[in-house]
Amino acid sequence: MGEFELIRHYFAAAPCAQGGEGVALGIGDDCALLALPAGEQLAVSTDTLVVGVHFPHNSDPFLLGQRSLAVAASDLAAMGATPLAFTLALTLPDTSADWLRAYAEGLNSMARQCNMSLVGGDTTRGPLSLTMTVFGRVPAGQALTRSGARPGDLVCVGGELGNAAGALPLVLAERQAEPSVAAPLLAHYWSPAPQLALGQALRGKASSALDISDGLLADCGHIATASKVALRLQKDSLPVSQALQSFLGLEDARLAALTGGDDYVLAFTLPGAELPGLLAAGWPIHVVGRVEVGSGVSLHDREGRDITPAVRGYQHFRD
Amino acid sequence: MGEFELIRHYFAAAPCAQGGEGVALGIGDDCALLALPAGEQLAVSTDTLVVGVHFPHNSDPFLLGQRSLAVAASDLAAMGATPLAFTLALTLPDTSADWLRAYAEGLNSMARQCNMSLVGGDTTRGPLSLTMTVFGRVPAGQALTRSGARPGDLVCVGGELGNAAGALPLVLAERQAEPSVAAPLLAHYWSPAPQLALGQALRGKASSALDISDGLLADCGHIATASKVALRLQKDSLPVSQALQSFLGLEDARLAALTGGDDYVLAFTLPGAELPGLLAAGWPIHVVGRVEVGSGVSLHDREGRDITPAVRGYQHFRD
Repeated sequence: MGEFELIRHYFAAAPCAQGGEGVALGIGDDCALLALPAGEQLAVSTDTLVVGVHFPHNSDPFLLGQRSLAVAASDLAAMGATPLAFTLALTLPDTSADWLRAYAEGLNSMARQCNMSLVGGDTTRGPLSLTMTVFGRVPAGQALTRSGARPGDLVCVGGELGNAAGALPLVLAERQAEPSVAAPLLAHYWSPAPQLALGQALRGKASSALDISDGLLADCGHIATASKVALRLQKDSLPVSQALQSFLGLEDARLAALTGGDDYVLAFTLPGAELPGLLAAGWPIHVVGRVEVGSGVSLHDREGRDITPAVRGYQHFRD
Repeated sequence: MGEFELIRHYFAAAPCAQGGEGVALGIGDDCALLALPAGEQLAVSTDTLVVGVHFPHNSDPFLLGQRSLAVAASDLAAMGATPLAFTLALTLPDTSADWLRAYAEGLNSMARQCNMSLVGGDTTRGPLSLTMTVFGRVPAGQALTRSGARPGDLVCVGGELGNAAGALPLVLAERQAEPSVAAPLLAHYWSPAPQLALGQALRGKASSALDISDGLLADCGHIATASKVALRLQKDSLPVSQALQSFLGLEDARLAALTGGDDYVLAFTLPGAELPGLLAAGWPIHVVGRVEVGSGVSLHDREGRDITPAVRGYQHFRD
């Protein structure tokens, strides 16, 4: 048995590969088989993380295992889908047993949090790269897309923004910070919590949704384009964490919230009438703006002045 | 718009990305949505091809586009699944427009042959690597697995074997051959035809199936293990092409048939009573052995002697 076949057996024996809801046939055949309840559709998304592009060389393998699945599962959250399963295509330069064990433990940990089963994949030799394909189920016609925002809707986010971007100089060891500041930022970077429950709660309520991976400004642009509307954001409404403010100061914290990537917090539009019920149910929703007739995304101060920054995109760690 | 975002737009505009059967929502949102007919399950498989491991540097991009999808779709054929869709995670060292255009044309060509839609993916910078995740549908309970072979069943293959392994020295330019010999071998390597129709025809008939990617001996071993039976193969029954015989001689052609990889021909077990009907319907089925009580795979000559070669596996181009 070759070393890569051993790795396949290793993953097949992992706790998260032992089947679960919706898995009719798991790892070990030519295909896995997934079963859906009547009236539901399958949501599918694929994400690749490449060493030196999406995460630093010498990243902790446990944290990488958590993060690689969380980032992919966040796309299911954005559709309002209930997670089912994932496949992992793992390309490795060598086969360190310690690295694999720690990576699989991180993966298991996030799979348990998200209630997802590993149902297949591939392992090949090459520069470190991880491609996750995730599967969820959603009642037909109820998936949250990017195209339903209507003028008058509120623009909302599901939590504080900019923490992952703030963490980046710490991840890259370019800066240091007090543990009370560094710990929450690093936790957000390495263990983003996909907002799966919030996504499901928004089904039938939100008019559009996505998860923020490229920064609020850039991602709101995707909603504006797909929905053929304008999104007007209020700078003073942007939620930023105390840790990020301490680390960057309020102005730069807000810039990180607008243009920083890798937040994996949901952004969505909501008819105003839906807001009170969601807030009363305890969902961590922040209103950051409003949908208008027009196109594009703009940022405004309290006096109504347009202060949209020139920097829009975010190229991740390096692109 | 960054260069990689341009590539995503490029693929989103490809003919194979315009939706099709089973695609409720295609490229452009956080997830694609697939719809299945009532009573059907989703078959899923993931395959990674890495440059220098699974295909040579400087491979023709059109041929690579064809081959990368064909290899993945072959897993659907092995389950008896009807193909629906695929995602592509493409990692590229740079963004040559000519390379991308030719690759996408090859991909489109194979997607049309297989009736599959591109529904999502990711594009990142890094050493050339392609991960395909393919989706098919199959009536619940009718998928062909590896675990149903029973003593007394016939061992069959869906066509001539060893052509891709025979082509390898031509692919690597280590040897040359007359066009009449080289052309069919290279065609088999670069444009394997996934046996999708045969797989579907075997539903409810074959007791087990897989596609031969690691060589007949190694892959029959997977059926033997999963089904807890022995597979006894007849050397003189192994189908090899005229081109392969001309290129390698009969003995080495048969060795290529047994141990060569990348054939992507179906191997399956079949109760004898099913054979006449399938042959009468014109399916290219070759009987190469029989299932027995026991374990493992053995090869025998016409006199019944065990001539199982020591070489079992196949590590692809390099592993």
